[in-house]
Amino acid sequence: MENNVYELQYALDTFYFLVCGALVMWMAAGFAMLEAGLVRAKNTTEILTKNVALFAIACTMYLICGYQLMYGGGFFLFGTDSVASMTEEAVAGVLSAQADFRNGVEDASMPYSGASDFFFQVVFVATAMSIVSGAVAERMKLWAFLLFAVVMTGVIYPMEGGWTWGGKEVFGMFTLEYSDYAGSGIVHMAGAAAALAGVLVLGPRKGKYGPNGEVNAIPGANLPLAALGMFILWMGWFGFNGGSTLQLSSIGSSNEVASVFLNTNAAASGGLIAALIVARIMFGKADLTMAVNGALAGLVAITAEPADPSPLLSTIIGAVGGVLVVFSILALDKMKIDDPVGAISVHGVVGIWGVLAVLLSDSDATFGGQIVGLLTIFVWVFVTSLIVWFIIKAIMGVRVSEEEEFEGVDISECGMEAYPEFTTGK
Amino acid sequence: MENNVYELQYALDTFYFLVCGALVMWMAAGFAMLEAGLVRAKNTTEILTKNVALFAIACTMYLICGYQLMYGGGFFLFGTDSVASMTEEAVAGVLSAQADFRNGVEDASMPYSGASDFFFQVVFVATAMSIVSGAVAERMKLWAFLLFAVVMTGVIYPMEGGWTWGGKEVFGMFTLEYSDYAGSGIVHMAGAAAALAGVLVLGPRKGKYGPNGEVNAIPGANLPLAALGMFILWMGWFGFNGGSTLQLSSIGSSNEVASVFLNTNAAASGGLIAALIVARIMFGKADLTMAVNGALAGLVAITAEPADPSPLLSTIIGAVGGVLVVFSILALDKMKIDDPVGAISVHGVVGIWGVLAVLLSDSDATFGGQIVGLLTIFVWVFVTSLIVWFIIKAIMGVRVSEEEEFEGVDISECGMEAYPEFTTGK
Amino acid sequence: MENNVYELQYALDTFYFLVCGALVMWMAAGFAMLEAGLVRAKNTTEILTKNVALFAIACTMYLICGYQLMYGGGFFLFGTDSVASMTEEAVAGVLSAQADFRNGVEDASMPYSGASDFFFQVVFVATAMSIVSGAVAERMKLWAFLLFAVVMTGVIYPMEGGWTWGGKEVFGMFTLEYSDYAGSGIVHMAGAAAALAGVLVLGPRKGKYGPNGEVNAIPGANLPLAALGMFILWMGWFGFNGGSTLQLSSIGSSNEVASVFLNTNAAASGGLIAALIVARIMFGKADLTMAVNGALAGLVAITAEPADPSPLLSTIIGAVGGVLVVFSILALDKMKIDDPVGAISVHGVVGIWGVLAVLLSDSDATFGGQIVGLLTIFVWVFVTSLIVWFIIKAIMGVRVSEEEEFEGVDISECGMEAYPEFTTGK
Repeated sequence: MENNVYELQYALDTFYFLVCGALVMWMAAGFAMLEAGLVRAKNTTEILTKNVALFAIACTMYLICGYQLMYGGGFFLFGTDSVASMTEEAVAGVLSAQADFRNGVEDASMPYSGASDFFFQVVFVATAMSIVSGAVAERMKLWAFLLFAVVMTGVIYPMEGGWTWGGKEVFGMFTLEYSDYAGSGIVHMAGAAAALAGVLVLGPRKGKYGPNGEVNAIPGANLPLAALGMFILWMGWFGFNGGSTLQLSSIGSSNEVASVFLNTNAAASGGLIAALIVARIMFGKADLTMAVNGALAGLVAITAEPADPSPLLSTIIGAVGGVLVVFSILALDKMKIDDPVGAISVHGVVGIWGVLAVLLSDSDATFGGQIVGLLTIFVWVFVTSLIVWFIIKAIMGVRVSEEEEFEGVDISECGMEAYPEFTTGK
Repeated sequence: MENNVYELQYALDTFYFLVCGALVMWMAAGFAMLEAGLVRAKNTTEILTKNVALFAIACTMYLICGYQLMYGGGFFLFGTDSVASMTEEAVAGVLSAQADFRNGVEDASMPYSGASDFFFQVVFVATAMSIVSGAVAERMKLWAFLLFAVVMTGVIYPMEGGWTWGGKEVFGMFTLEYSDYAGSGIVHMAGAAAALAGVLVLGPRKGKYGPNGEVNAIPGANLPLAALGMFILWMGWFGFNGGSTLQLSSIGSSNEVASVFLNTNAAASGGLIAALIVARIMFGKADLTMAVNGALAGLVAITAEPADPSPLLSTIIGAVGGVLVVFSILALDKMKIDDPVGAISVHGVVGIWGVLAVLLSDSDATFGGQIVGLLTIFVWVFVTSLIVWFIIKAIMGVRVSEEEEFEGVDISECGMEAYPEFTTGK
Repeated sequence: MENNVYELQYALDTFYFLVCGALVMWMAAGFAMLEAGLVRAKNTTEILTKNVALFAIACTMYLICGYQLMYGGGFFLFGTDSVASMTEEAVAGVLSAQADFRNGVEDASMPYSGASDFFFQVVFVATAMSIVSGAVAERMKLWAFLLFAVVMTGVIYPMEGGWTWGGKEVFGMFTLEYSDYAGSGIVHMAGAAAALAGVLVLGPRKGKYGPNGEVNAIPGANLPLAALGMFILWMGWFGFNGGSTLQLSSIGSSNEVASVFLNTNAAASGGLIAALIVARIMFGKADLTMAVNGALAGLVAITAEPADPSPLLSTIIGAVGGVLVVFSILALDKMKIDDPVGAISVHGVVGIWGVLAVLLSDSDATFGGQIVGLLTIFVWVFVTSLIVWFIIKAIMGVRVSEEEEFEGVDISECGMEAYPEFTTGK
């Protein structure tokens, strides 16, 4: 009878992880739709192919070595045991852990299925990688991108994930005092740092910047897809942040999960409204792409601490993200850093804001700790990404030919158009 | 050990609310896709902007004052406390409530996180508002619409929600004896009443009605989006109705939730089939837009009582909704009430049917109670909406210029086309 | 107090079923988007209409007679009782079942709501039927298809489902020793068998095969929809396979569910990567449609046993599916079996592989048992489908006229174009 209660707790926490993981997996569809909506028709098949392939690569690489690098333990690579067959061992482990818990042993945690933990973690890797694909869209070689995805999801992300969530020492030298609930920095800013390195190696799209400093708008081909992508990401983010509480089965933890859902929603709303208003003031129009990026900025901003702020403060944190993202997009264009979907601004610039905003509600976090954490993540991801991009460039090149870029990469890379019947010219 | 059981119950009910709330949030994407699919290409960016912005506004206004108006209590507006930080207080409250429950105190409820309740309620407000955007599509000024959204989600909906679900007296005068499980009337008919007021103030689209009484079809630009929208709404409705049981953690309540899922699905199926067949008989074709509206009509019809009917009766209730919606769409066109997506028919006419259908399975509900409830909601929402629309009209106008309407509101309101490469003419 | 624990177990298992069922329902949207993306613009409205209507028909027919045929018991058809009203009876049944369980009675199962079981089963029927619509796309009469859907979902599928999951004797003659966790054979291969019969009766699309053995590519009109469909199916498959554990509330079963989620994701990833690489080698391009079909093949392959394999083996099982699907699509085209979306390859050929792959990890399954099971399902579904297709052909015809096919079935069957503003020619 007593065991029944513990079995239920274990089952509920496992289920909670799986549901949240499925929501995060769904974010992959969100990135795919967002990016497919914001590129030109002639580059749509290719961006879709990158998005579906990177998700598969991320899941496979994290299984092969990423999870092991990040958290250790990793029976996954060489393990040929089924996860389900570990039941007996798991039951014994659970009952012993729960005995600890009952007896007040410190650090005793209420456990859940290891497979559910892996599932929840693996979809985060894919999220980090999804951020890159948008920024390098419309000009990068598909296979160069996929090769980078192998290294990013297998090594670069897991290393910094190990230093932060994994609690490991940074190269055996120091440990970080860094607070980042669901990964404004660890996932989003990291993805943006890899994207920035790629964009710098790659250069801007032909025709984006004129000889006299003009910034030419290159409108996306299918805005309903962009809006759909935003809604998918918004929904998936409930799993992303809500699952990062890592436990649900007590009154305290379920209150915390509920607070995370509420604050995540509030921040996205604040970001959307702020970006819409700022864009209206600056451009005189209700700019849908800015509204979409504002919502995503709000989500990124609250990700580093979605539990502690009040709902009102969450709205404000999101709104600041929404304002930042508009100015960041304009500033990057001034610097001729060409990011077709605004990913570096949404995930990078606002990711930094999110990590600093932790200081507004979490008295345990320190300014120094947050800054050192951000710097460690950024330097590691940016430098290693730059090296990998350069190696790939040397081996196979990273950029399609001028002619291919003009014709659209769909034909040259994928051999098929995304909308063969809709577009008359190129 | 005993507390553990109660903590689990609390956690499970909270999680159930959050999952259902996330599904209802997802309905916002459904409305956006449905409406984007059913308008012309030149008005697509604008309808998307309205949809994403109204969701954000609804969430923010309900936080600022709506929840407070509807249920009282509301620590949200001025509260700067984090929800998560209320854990200790919450635990004490929960244990005391559970002690009541165990000791057989009447009206003792098994509690769950207040934040999860807010999250579930807030997405309902957005649903009510989403209904409006479709009906006024293709001719209303964007900022006039958003201004209306502020009042609708912050005041108009919360007031009537307070009289019904909130149990408050109508202006201190009388209390309603009105039964509406998940809101056929409270949410759907209310949204349709606001939409009707808007459409009457606005007038029909240019070219919709000819001088000799012709009704000109204005086909939607992207039917896959409309079908996708229907599927999203169908899925999200499991949360909408299923979460309205408000509790899951006992045998009785989980049976009820399961029954709600089953009946909701059955009614949608019945509505779709009925509308498809009626349209086939009347027009000689399998009309996809009627099928889509039939499914939504089935969903609206079962929403007022999805737990009590048998699955077969649920199918029939939905089918009646599917028949009604076809005739209602035709009738509104005869009356020159121009509703591009059929929202007033789906949510208004069928919403009334849903509220009356409660009498088929719930012996506690009375005809008089349902009628008085419907009238109260309709009169309140319609009259206040009419006043607000007129005030907005006086201040800034509600309708775009004829030239803007001809060119499409995407350029004039949002400054960007939704499909810049696909359409050759306007 | 003791009852509370059991009530929680019952509620959690019921909720788990409902969440998984909602995810499987979502797969209907996935099939609709996948198929709408892969057909030509002129046949899009019709394929959408088929997809929304078949889902409604499946749900209604399974309610009327399918569930009864498959599992017996069926109070649904003639039952006018509400499911919710059965609470008291259900509670008594549950408590008695749980007493059995506690007292160690063999075969005592931890129960859950019957309505949640129905809901989970009913969405499977729709999945089987969804497989058919893609294969017969672009040339079959809509009402002929819907008539077939009535028989398939009301009789053909429930009969073989009864012999396998229902544990019934095949025509009172023999029982199968067949292991198929979530239905690689029972659902997917069965759907493909019905599709194959339809395609054989129907013949290929005009222009698909040239007089000298040429296979002409007929590109899909909207690839973002196809990619979206894949992501939806991938997500929904967590419910499809994960719910098929049928229980969550113990440590052992929740570990198994978590393993199923993890392996399902791994197999899809393996399938996608394998198909992408094989297509690259064979065609020289990164073929998005092959990648999409590879992911779906990986999902089908793991469906017959998603719990027992290690994650690495799951990846390999999926990858083999991804390789198979590419060659199968090419082979079917050689045989002039025209399947516009590759459904017969994905669900049929790879479904067989999935059933055989059970032998790699489940020592209780036998080669003979799997083969006899596959043959029984295939012969039953293929032969009865063939008969039904021929009867429909005799009554009303199955194929549209050549002129209608040339003009596109959207106009002739549905009276409206899917993209009236995007396409200039036919």
